[in-house]
Amino acid sequence: MMAETKTRLITALIVAPFVVACFINYNSLIGLVAAVVLLASYELLNMAILDQQHRIFLYFGVSISVGFTIVYGIFQARNGMLLLCLAFILNGALSVLTIKKISIVWNTVLASSLSLLYIAGCLSFFFPLYLKFGAANALLNLTAVWLYDTGAYFAGLRWGKTKIAKHISPSKSLEGIFGGFLTAIAFSVVYKICFELIFHSEVMPFKSLVIFSLTIAIFDTFGDIFESALKRYFNLKDSGNVLPGHGGMLDRIDGLLFVTPVTYFLFTLGIL
Amino acid sequence: MMAETKTRLITALIVAPFVVACFINYNSLIGLVAAVVLLASYELLNMAILDQQHRIFLYFGVSISVGFTIVYGIFQARNGMLLLCLAFILNGALSVLTIKKISIVWNTVLASSLSLLYIAGCLSFFFPLYLKFGAANALLNLTAVWLYDTGAYFAGLRWGKTKIAKHISPSKSLEGIFGGFLTAIAFSVVYKICFELIFHSEVMPFKSLVIFSLTIAIFDTFGDIFESALKRYFNLKDSGNVLPGHGGMLDRIDGLLFVTPVTYFLFTLGIL
Repeated sequence: MMAETKTRLITALIVAPFVVACFINYNSLIGLVAAVVLLASYELLNMAILDQQHRIFLYFGVSISVGFTIVYGIFQARNGMLLLCLAFILNGALSVLTIKKISIVWNTVLASSLSLLYIAGCLSFFFPLYLKFGAANALLNLTAVWLYDTGAYFAGLRWGKTKIAKHISPSKSLEGIFGGFLTAIAFSVVYKICFELIFHSEVMPFKSLVIFSLTIAIFDTFGDIFESALKRYFNLKDSGNVLPGHGGMLDRIDGLLFVTPVTYFLFTLGIL
Repeated sequence: MMAETKTRLITALIVAPFVVACFINYNSLIGLVAAVVLLASYELLNMAILDQQHRIFLYFGVSISVGFTIVYGIFQARNGMLLLCLAFILNGALSVLTIKKISIVWNTVLASSLSLLYIAGCLSFFFPLYLKFGAANALLNLTAVWLYDTGAYFAGLRWGKTKIAKHISPSKSLEGIFGGFLTAIAFSVVYKICFELIFHSEVMPFKSLVIFSLTIAIFDTFGDIFESALKRYFNLKDSGNVLPGHGGMLDRIDGLLFVTPVTYFLFTLGIL
């Protein structure tokens, strides 16, 4: 366990600065989100499309998810639903044109649709978040989830007793969630003070940071268990191995996928 | 065959006036679209969720699709992607809270996501179509697809020779598509003249009617074959039997689901 924790830490220390740097500019953010969608949707479709003869659907599905993300980003996060439905229809038409074996229809079509809505759609909320509520809040959404995950991981390891989803995600515990919640609050307070002092950029008010951390605790947990359920269906432990010590990209962003649209929603309501 | 055609015609003559009447008012249109989404998403989830113990996911999935449609309609077709992703997350969280058997995760989660994007999402483009481009154009989108389907059916029956999708939808022929295309053009010209004379409401220009009919011919065909592929995967001939002679609701709207977002897209581009 110690060796794995060390690998996990080293990977984080190498990858995190690059990821954070992408938030300096909107165009580099598009590149970052598209790259993450590429890896995560590849992993999802790779789980679902087991038939080696039908790898072409994997490439269709991934390309369409990534294409949607880039176009949505370039169009400044407008007409999202139209782009999403057109991407779905394009995927459907391509499937119809190339499919040979009916028995694989369901999994491939469904995995591509899921990839569009779940991965490309949900993660793309970084674009409106960045454009409407500022780079500082968008970066906080990402880094607070990281810190939440880290806090939950170590608190769970040390004090985890009350298991909440034994059959799906056996290591999840209430103690871990609480530890993550406290870590997220502590981190976001420090983040706010530093950002406002050093960069003079506005971060949500102090009282919103508590609601925000609570949102992360709830939706990160649901997101994580949801993704674990999908993996377990395929008898996999990790969605991939692109990030040593962290498993696959999808494992790393599963909480973020549920948190980001909800954060954006709370911002538009004026709650954050 | 004659008896089925007769049943089909009688059903159409009874149902069509009610459907057309719903276009008089925006609120009744919301009711109509929600009712169709209810029936079609029920049929889709009923195909996918075979396990009788897990019928509850069927009701979750249908409720969330219908809920999305109503809320999106009431909010005047704004924030569609946010609503779609929040509905997806809600569905994911409910699944996580209630799921007992991992082996059914994939089908249920995926069928609900598909229902959201494919049925509720695509059909809901009637709302922005109605609000931005007028009731007359929205109703034309529906009725021209009906007439296209009718024309394609009879032309295919009479002259169908060149099969285009033998394995998935054996009765589809190029001759049928061409017959449908001509029927759609003829109908939409008559529709435009009548509507502008009687109701003084604006319908797209004559040259756009040709592009519009071509759009229907292409995307109705893809939509129809796409839905046939899903059905064939489950060894079903019809998605249901709610409309005597027409099969299920999903069978009836399969073409419309692909045509409507594309029509709306062409309108926003200024092509129609």
